[in-house]
Parts: sequence; C-alpha cells; structure tokens
Amino acid sequence: MNITALEHIALSVRALSMDAIQKAKSGHPGLPLGTAELGAILYGEILRHDPADPAWPDRDRFILSAGHGSMLLYSLLHLSGYDDISLDDIKNFRQIGSRAAGHPEYGLVRGIEATSGPLGQGLSMAVGFAIAETMLAVRFNTARRRIVDHYTYVLAGDGCLMEGVSSEAGSLAGRLGLGKLVVFYDSNHITIDGSTSLAFTEDVAARYGAYGWQVLRGSMYNFEELARLVSQAQRETAKPSLVILESTIGKGAPTKQNTAEVHGAPLGAEEITAARAALGIPAGAEGDFYISPKAMEFFAVKRAEWKKARQAWQTEFDAWSREEPGLRKQWDHFHSGAPAPSTGDDPHRPAISLPVFKEGDKIATRTAGNKALEAISAACLNLVGGSADLKSPNAVGFSTTAYSPTNREGRYIHFGIREFAMAAIANGIQLHGGLRAFCATFMVFSDYLRPALRLSALMDQPVIYVLTHDSIFVGEDGPTHQPIEHLASLRAIPRVRVLRPADAEETAEAWAMALERHDGPTILALSRQNITVFPKDDPDWRNTIRTGAYIVKNAGASPNAVIIATGSEVGLALEAARLVEAGGKKVRVVSMISRELFESQPEAVHQSIIPPGARVICCEAGIKSGWERWARPEDILSVDRFGISGPAGKVAEALGFTAGALAAIINR
Amino acid sequence: MNITALEHIALSVRALSMDAIQKAKSGHPGLPLGTAELGAILYGEILRHDPADPAWPDRDRFILSAGHGSMLLYSLLHLSGYDDISLDDIKNFRQIGSRAAGHPEYGLVRGIEATSGPLGQGLSMAVGFAIAETMLAVRFNTARRRIVDHYTYVLAGDGCLMEGVSSEAGSLAGRLGLGKLVVFYDSNHITIDGSTSLAFTEDVAARYGAYGWQVLRGSMYNFEELARLVSQAQRETAKPSLVILESTIGKGAPTKQNTAEVHGAPLGAEEITAARAALGIPAGAEGDFYISPKAMEFFAVKRAEWKKARQAWQTEFDAWSREEPGLRKQWDHFHSGAPAPSTGDDPHRPAISLPVFKEGDKIATRTAGNKALEAISAACLNLVGGSADLKSPNAVGFSTTAYSPTNREGRYIHFGIREFAMAAIANGIQLHGGLRAFCATFMVFSDYLRPALRLSALMDQPVIYVLTHDSIFVGEDGPTHQPIEHLASLRAIPRVRVLRPADAEETAEAWAMALERHDGPTILALSRQNITVFPKDDPDWRNTIRTGAYIVKNAGASPNAVIIATGSEVGLALEAARLVEAGGKKVRVVSMISRELFESQPEAVHQSIIPPGARVICCEAGIKSGWERWARPEDILSVDRFGISGPAGKVAEALGFTAGALAAIINR
Repeated sequence: MNITALEHIALSVRALSMDAIQKAKSGHPGLPLGTAELGAILYGEILRHDPADPAWPDRDRFILSAGHGSMLLYSLLHLSGYDDISLDDIKNFRQIGSRAAGHPEYGLVRGIEATSGPLGQGLSMAVGFAIAETMLAVRFNTARRRIVDHYTYVLAGDGCLMEGVSSEAGSLAGRLGLGKLVVFYDSNHITIDGSTSLAFTEDVAARYGAYGWQVLRGSMYNFEELARLVSQAQRETAKPSLVILESTIGKGAPTKQNTAEVHGAPLGAEEITAARAALGIPAGAEGDFYISPKAMEFFAVKRAEWKKARQAWQTEFDAWSREEPGLRKQWDHFHSGAPAPSTGDDPHRPAISLPVFKEGDKIATRTAGNKALEAISAACLNLVGGSADLKSPNAVGFSTTAYSPTNREGRYIHFGIREFAMAAIANGIQLHGGLRAFCATFMVFSDYLRPALRLSALMDQPVIYVLTHDSIFVGEDGPTHQPIEHLASLRAIPRVRVLRPADAEETAEAWAMALERHDGPTILALSRQNITVFPKDDPDWRNTIRTGAYIVKNAGASPNAVIIATGSEVGLALEAARLVEAGGKKVRVVSMISRELFESQPEAVHQSIIPPGARVICCEAGIKSGWERWARPEDILSVDRFGISGPAGKVAEALGFTAGALAAIINR
Repeated sequence: MNITALEHIALSVRALSMDAIQKAKSGHPGLPLGTAELGAILYGEILRHDPADPAWPDRDRFILSAGHGSMLLYSLLHLSGYDDISLDDIKNFRQIGSRAAGHPEYGLVRGIEATSGPLGQGLSMAVGFAIAETMLAVRFNTARRRIVDHYTYVLAGDGCLMEGVSSEAGSLAGRLGLGKLVVFYDSNHITIDGSTSLAFTEDVAARYGAYGWQVLRGSMYNFEELARLVSQAQRETAKPSLVILESTIGKGAPTKQNTAEVHGAPLGAEEITAARAALGIPAGAEGDFYISPKAMEFFAVKRAEWKKARQAWQTEFDAWSREEPGLRKQWDHFHSGAPAPSTGDDPHRPAISLPVFKEGDKIATRTAGNKALEAISAACLNLVGGSADLKSPNAVGFSTTAYSPTNREGRYIHFGIREFAMAAIANGIQLHGGLRAFCATFMVFSDYLRPALRLSALMDQPVIYVLTHDSIFVGEDGPTHQPIEHLASLRAIPRVRVLRPADAEETAEAWAMALERHDGPTILALSRQNITVFPKDDPDWRNTIRTGAYIVKNAGASPNAVIIATGSEVGLALEAARLVEAGGKKVRVVSMISRELFESQPEAVHQSIIPPGARVICCEAGIKSGWERWARPEDILSVDRFGISGPAGKVAEALGFTAGALAAIINR
C-alpha cells in the first residue's frame, strides 16, 4: 500500500471538491472532505474494477448512499480514469450539461452504479446488488472457475442509517447472510440540524449486531487501519459487515470542520485558502482545481494493473466459456437484456407460451397473472423476485425455492413486511445486471415503496411491480386497504407505465408487455376479485393493446357513446352497454390498459379507437383526476372518496359504482 | 387481580372473534385468539379509562398497531362497556353500516384511538401520543396536582416491527426517553408467508436495547407474569418499554393454531366447534356469539370503579381549575380545537397578527412561512412540530426550545432524518388531543411520508405539512430533489388540501387557512426561491382566496385569456401577461392556491373567477394531469418529465418553462 499516494489522492479529492462546490455556489463539501481517505483507499487499493471497462460484469460495486457527497465520487472517478467524467465536467459541477450533476445520476457517468440522494436507498439498493452477486455466482461459477466473485461496498451517513428503509434492508441483509456486502458508516456526529445527539442517540453497532451483521470500528483517517478493517470485512463470508468510521465532517476546513454549516454550503474563498494551507495543497490560483501529480502517477500505474486483472478474468471467462457452452449461452441471455431466449425475429419479444384462457372463464387477474408468471419464469430463468409477505394473496409464487443463505439457487425472495426495502432491493438487483427483478404487494401499500419506484423510473430500470387488490373491490378490509388515488398517483410519476388488464387474457399479455419493456418500470395492477374473460371484437387486440388501448366491443363506426374503462371496470362497461343497448343505443367499449401509453400515441391512433367527436364516458374505480382529458367531469364514473368496509359488491353499490349507474350516465 | 374473570374475558374474546369472522366469511382470527389474555388484562386490570366517558382527557391510550386483529379490540370495547359498539355491530363485522369495520377506524367507535392496519404506523403514532402526554403534563401539572398522567400502550406484531417506520419511531422514542410508552410485541413466529424465520431472524430485543428501550420478556398466557411485566414497564420512567410476549397465533384453534393459515381466514365451522370444546366454551348454537356471564359481572363491577376513578380525577381537576385559573383558561383553549384564543366573532378564525409584507418585496414563500409560523406559534401555544432534519432549509424554526427528555417544555421536535415516522408521530400528537401538530420536509420527500399523510386524511386530522422546495426551481440538487408529480399526487389523496401560495402575503394567509381547518390535513407547498410580492386587483382577496382562487389581475370582464397559475408560477403568469399585453391582448391572471378547494365550489364561484367561455391557460411547474378539466392539453404549460441539475433559472429555460413560453401559448 502506497500511503503517500493515497494521501495525495485524498488531497486531490478535497481540492477538487472545495473548488467545484465553490464555483457552483452550491453543493455539499462536508462529506467529500470528511471521507476523502476512505475514498482514496477504496479507489486506490480496494476496488477491483477497471475504469477502461466500466461495464466489466465482475467488477466490485461502490455505491455512495450519501449521494449529496457527489463530489467525492466525481473526484475519484475522474482521478482513477473513468473517461466519461472530465475535469470540465467537474469544473461545471451542478451546471446543465455537466455529468457532474447535483447528486450522482445513474446513466450520466458509467462509474455511477445507482442514483443516490434520497437517503437510505443507496444502502438498500446495495443489498440488492449483493443478492444478485450470490444468485449469479451460484448459477455460473463452477468447481474450477469463479467468474462471479465481487464485493458491494457502500458509503452511508447518519441520514441513511436513520431512514427506515435502511433498517428494513439491514434486517433482511442479516437474515440473508450477505457476506460480500460491506457498508462504511461515516460517523461524523453532525447533521443539518446540528449534533446527531438531537435526534439520534441509538447504539448503531448494537443495532446492526442485532440484525446479524459483523460490526467493526475504526478511524476514517488511518490508512493501515482502513485496510485492516476492509480485510476483516472480506474475511467474514457469512455476514454483511458494518464498518463504523469515526470522522470529522468537512475535515480540513480549519474553522468550519465539525459544524453543521459545512454540510451543504460552499466553504467560501477565505476558508478554502486556509484549508489549502492547512492541508498542504500547493499555493495556486483560486479555484485551480488542483490535482496532485503524485496521485496521477499512482493511478497511471494502477490502470495498467487493473487492466491486467480484468484481462486475467477475461482469460478465465473464456476458458469457462469453452468448458461450459451451455452456461455461457445462458450467461449471454442473462446479460442480453432480452427477457427470454428468443426464437422469433424480435429479440425483445419473448418466445414464451403464455397461458391460454377461455371466454367465460371467471378468474381474478392476480390469479391469471400467477399463471403467466409461472410460464414466464420457466422460460426466463433470470427472473427473480417476491412479495412483501403476501406471496399467496399477491399470487406471485412460482416453481422455484426460497432464496436463503443456504439456497442461493432460490429465485423467490421472501422480503418480509418491508415494502420500501423490497422495491429498493429490486432496483439493486436490476441495476447489477444479469437479472430481471419483480416485486409485489397490495396496491394500497405502493405508498410505502413509492420513493423506490420513483428511482426505478428515474434510472430507467425495468423492475416489474405486481400490485394486486387494485380497487374498492378489495371489499371487507376497508378504506385502509382499498386503493382510491393510487392508479392516478402511480401514473403521475414520469416514465412509470401502469398496466391494468381487464381480464385473464389481457393479464398474460400485460406480463409480456412488462417483460418487453427495457426503459423503465411497469406496474401490473391486478384484481382481487374474479373477472369473466370477455370476447374481443378487435381480432388483432394482442398487438393493438400495445398502443395502450383497443376496442373490446365495436358497435359500428358511429356509436352513440364510447366507454373507456380499465381493468375490472371493462366488464362493468360491457354490462352497462348491454343495459343501454336494450334501449337501442350503440355503445363502443374500449379497454385502456395503459392511459399514459395511449396518450403518448399519435392522433391517428387516438382516432382509430375514439372516433373524433364521439361522446366519451370514462369508468375507473379510482379518482376522476386525469380522465378529464377524455371526458367531461359529469361523464366520468369514478370513486372520489375513501372506501368502506364491506363485501365488494355492497361497497360498489354504496359508492354508486355499478353498471346501472354507468348506464344512467350514458342515457343522460 | 381476578384471574378467573380474566380467563372468562379471554374466553369471550375468542368466542366473539371466531364467530364474527366466520359469519363475515372474512377477517383475521390469528391475533385475537393469540393475544386474548393480554387484551383481557389490559381492559380488565391495567387501563385507566372509563367506557362511560371515552373522551376523558387523562385516560390511558391503547393502540392496536396490528390493526388486522380488529376483533380483539371490538370484543374488548364491547365487553368493557363502550356503548357505541353493540353486539349487533360485532354480529355484522365487516358489513356496511357496522362500526366493527374490517380494520379499526378512528371515528367509528370512540374507544378506537387511531386507525390502524397499514403496518408499523400504529406503533409510530403511539410515539406521538406519548410525546403529547409529556408536553401537556409539563405545561399543566403543578406541584400539587397531576392532571395529566397517563400511559400509552400498544400491541404490535411482527409486521409492525419489520416496517421501517417503526424503526424510525423506535429510535426516536429511545432518544426522547418516553417512559410512559409501553409496547407489547406479540411474538408468534408466524407471518402470512409462514415462519418469521423466512425473513425476520434479527434479535428484536437487542435492537430495541440499542434504541435505548427497556426490554422485557414473558409469556402471553400467564396473567401474573403479564401483571408483573406491566408493572416493571411502568416503573421505568426514563425509557420506553418493549414487552416481548411469546405467543401462539390462533391459540385455541386445535388444528390451525401456530400456522400461517389462521392469520387471515375464518376458522371454519368444524374448527370452531373443536376450539369451543377445547377452550371450555359452553356448547351452544353455532355462531351464538358467546359472552361469559362471569366476564359481564366482572365488567359491571369494574365500570363502577372506573367511574369512581374518573370522578376522583374530575375532583382533582376542579380543584386545580380553582387554583390555576390561568392554566385552566389555557387548557380550555388547547382542548377547544380553536387555533388560538379568539377575540373575534368566529372562534375558528384565529386572532393572530399575521406578518405584513410590502408589494415588491422579494422573499421565498418558505421564508414568509417562517414569519407566519413565528407569529402564529406565539399566539397558539399548543402548536408543536418540527422537521426531518431540515429546520433551516424548511424554515420552520420558531421561538421555542428543542423538545427533549430534560426539556418537555420545548415545542420544536427534532425528528431526525425520518420523514415517515415524523408524519405518523404528528398524527399521534394530533389524535391525542390538546395540541396542534405540524411537520416539515422537502416536497419531493413527501413520498417517504405518504402513507402517514393518507392516514391523516382518512382520520380527518388537521396536521399541517410544510413542504418546501416545491418545484424544479429547487435547481442544482437535480431530479432527485425536484418535485414533478408531487402536487398532483398530493392532491389525489381524498380530503388532503394542498395550498400553494403565490407570494409572501398569500403564504401568511395560507398558514391561517391551515390553522382554521379542522377536518383534515393541509399541505403548505412553499418555494425555495425568492418571489416578488405582487399587487392584487381583488380588494377582498383575503376572503376570496378561501374559495381556492382569486383574481390577481383582472383585465376587464371579457379578457382574451385567463391564466390560472399556482405558487411561484403566478409571478410567471403576470410576466407573460405583460409580454402579450404589449400586443394589445387582455389577460386575466388567477392565483389558484388550492385547486381541490376551488373545484369543490359551486358553479357561480367558478364563473366569478373564470368567465364562461373564456379561453383558459394553466401554468404550474408540475405534471399536466388534473389541469385538463380547465384547459386543453395544448393550453397547459407544465413539466411532464424529471428535472435536471442546474441553477434554477437555467433549469426552467432548459425545460421550456418561462414567461416567454407562456406568452407564446397565449399568442398561439
């Protein structure tokens, strides 16, 4: 270990961070200054990675859970040689067009493994990364060759540890015995409000011990100790490790270090000058973005070493490929992004025998979804996931075993009653590469996991969310369990695609659509109650549905009304259509499986489904808002109040949500 | 302690629960059967309450955090004499019109202290109850008389303890030394998926020890032990207590107890018959809703004792009132629901000198909000709250001290970086009675607290949520910190009122409106950036704004266009209006501080603001959805994608969100 070089890396991190934040007049110097030594040893000595090939599948992952300290990461990525973050990017920290954004954004720089900033989630996603590593290792490693064998490292602060999501993820990580997860806790005793003692006096070490973690302690500022702690963490293979590092926020800023002030504001020119002098940064021009030549020299040598290490892995991988052609084929499929080995022309259209249903079958869409999942999981061996302790109610069990410390082959994850961590972990599994992740809970509890869903969308991760019990038709469990505003508020998140299939056939197709999607999360909104499989007038509906809507019941080119309905309400619409047709009216019924997908289509597609000038009536067991684009408020049958406890049919009656009520609107 | 009577209470709880769930064909027998002994001793011996006066302010509170076990609570409330839950309600468990709803709903039965069912939140609200007790005790108790002196008891299951929100609340409760909080943990080792070992192997006792709690252990089924444990919990005055009770889910059901199956499905007639025999419930008609006469006799005597205890308290209270007329006056104000001592005619209109601002002042609405909070908190001494570690960024500090174990007088609560627990605790403080609660975070992190906000709304609790940094104008922090979909998704929750004031003057009025509201939560959506105080054409705007909107700039009765804008976009609209008026167009500008409030007004109010037939243009820095009721999609200036990191003005330009863009829409 070249301690002098590491000191120069730390020095450079501090210099770059101070200058970038000062120039941007915005940012968080506290963390990069306080943790520069850890950053230096991680990127200089610990991480097995190759900046020349950031996508190397067997690289170690590093996740900066305390994302506000983004300048730490940008400095290290730049210094170590990730060439998609330039010094110019750093000089334009927090400016439009710079890859050095306010918080680390997945996709902007290839060395950023996950978007972070919303606290607690980086650490929780890391649990997903560590799970993915074990799943791939057990599948692909052989007695002779270990081609999957890497660590997941995390840097977390007080905020990450206070957030409930990290408690959920930490408890599960302990249960799952994720020995290759190493979390560094930057224990600087300062938050935005002041001393952590204002709100955070718990014994963190004892808490993580209670979760079943190995807990280690040391100083942030002793390289030998840091190296020893990492090695100790690596040697513990049956437990994740928490390494508590005593530190000083803003270390190096002579008057501001160890104060809340240094957390999130530029130091100011005067303090920077004093800090440079104290740290031994050569006197130079103000804001010269100093980088120590010794650090550059060190990394130049390192880069050659990293390249060698990666090439050694590649040699091993090639040998393994020759020895195990079947596994290699599977590896390629897993890493192709394609949902399943394809036999057709379109690699993104899975060659899966979806389950077949018969018209007239009465089956809840959650149950139909289970049949689809069973078929898909048999073809897509990289699909993994589970539910927040609702395996049977969500109907997401499939032919596999439960993932556990002694059974890494298991593809079903018992997440426990931890919706938020579940979704964050699913993000981590998906981000790791090689696997497709799904997770499940009751739709009403999507509120619990919403912040992670937002990150799925922001990071374009195709995590599949199975949300069952999707309306007032939940019935007896009452208003705490009946979603009302949820379809609208899930659709509200940019890039989230909500699919609410209307019967079993649509549900199978919805699962396929979810798998086909590669640029963002999909919600499958599924019913608790049975729904009758209905005939579909559009003979090409399996294609048309991919525009977001299709015509279930046509009623000629000039219907008296067009009912747009979603999910279980399509059945209601068909019933209402029958009621009014007795009076001679012609009513078209449209199943709009995805409003946002339909709205993104060109006008011509809209007109092919909804004749221009037609009277449109919308029907969905959720709030009105959002449907007003398509119908007048009085032509929308919606539920704009909290639900009530009672049998589903009675609840619908009490809320005026019936075929009769819909027919009355049409006849009005 | 009359153990025989307690056994008969437990027996009756089991009999009622089995029958009610069986008759409803729906419900959760596992918990009521598994915890009947704890329920019996709590309602029979421990709780200091009086069913004849459920609103007795100094009663002990009991919160069933595991709300799915609602039949436990309904049985006990009925048996002990809460007369608003009848045997008929229980016989109609989970039917419309019955007060025995699927999950306990606050407001349906007066003995229900909080709505529960969404796991983890009952326990977290209880922390709020316990905080409220200490706050009122320190303010009102005197050396001679303790008129506030009660406990908060909670029954929680595995689910509650796995949810992150309870970790947040537990850690904070430890920090705050809430000695009169006693949580019973029903440790039955079974969840819906099967054994808790699937996902939950942590050492719960060690975890709560790490939080600074006293942890006790015992059996659920030994009354003497239960009594001893409660007494031990009560004697520890400096720490909350967790009492871990080993139990058997569904105890008494001969073949189904200790299985996941008994958690959430009726036992079936055969199992009930066998259970009755095993438990010694007299043979009787199927579904006879058996209540033991011994239990009834016991409670008849108890009711007299409880009445005496409450009368003794009343005598003490009366004496205190005579001794402390000033405190008594304050007590009455605190418990009146009125926001402040009123000098006017309307007791709900606070007599507060709101801060005054001048036209042309440039001030962020968060800063204006701080001035309003300062004025209001000086008049409303029962207003308490704080932020999730963003006291200064949220601008919610006011003239008080920090609440802590040694300073119960403090009205500012440092919640730590725990948004969800913060909101749940605010619900608890509000539900307790006597106090008004507010909480604060960045708007984008309202996602973290959303499940608690939904409960505020469902329970009609007027918690005030201060959500600052309310748009892309957050700037540099980037997409993780810029709300896009949040205004829409907050408005989506029934009974939530979102107020987005457009300048400092409106902000002060918005605070007053929030205080005036008593039937649900209010969101104050406030800007990070400075906004110029603008002149208002409506001379009566301070009243008109209470309809949800008013005319800022009139432009005559027949304007060429009406711009509806909210918050900081009203300034943008005024600028755009100036731009197009150079070309001779007349543009009205409406500030719509609350869309949902405005939409709830009669047509005549709508027409007084928006002339029928007028071309309407909407402008808000958030998603389009929901505005389509008022304008064509192409006439809405919105932000329908995630934000970007950069200085606020540059971000707005990059997203096409400028006065020029708005003017172009008007001119189109």
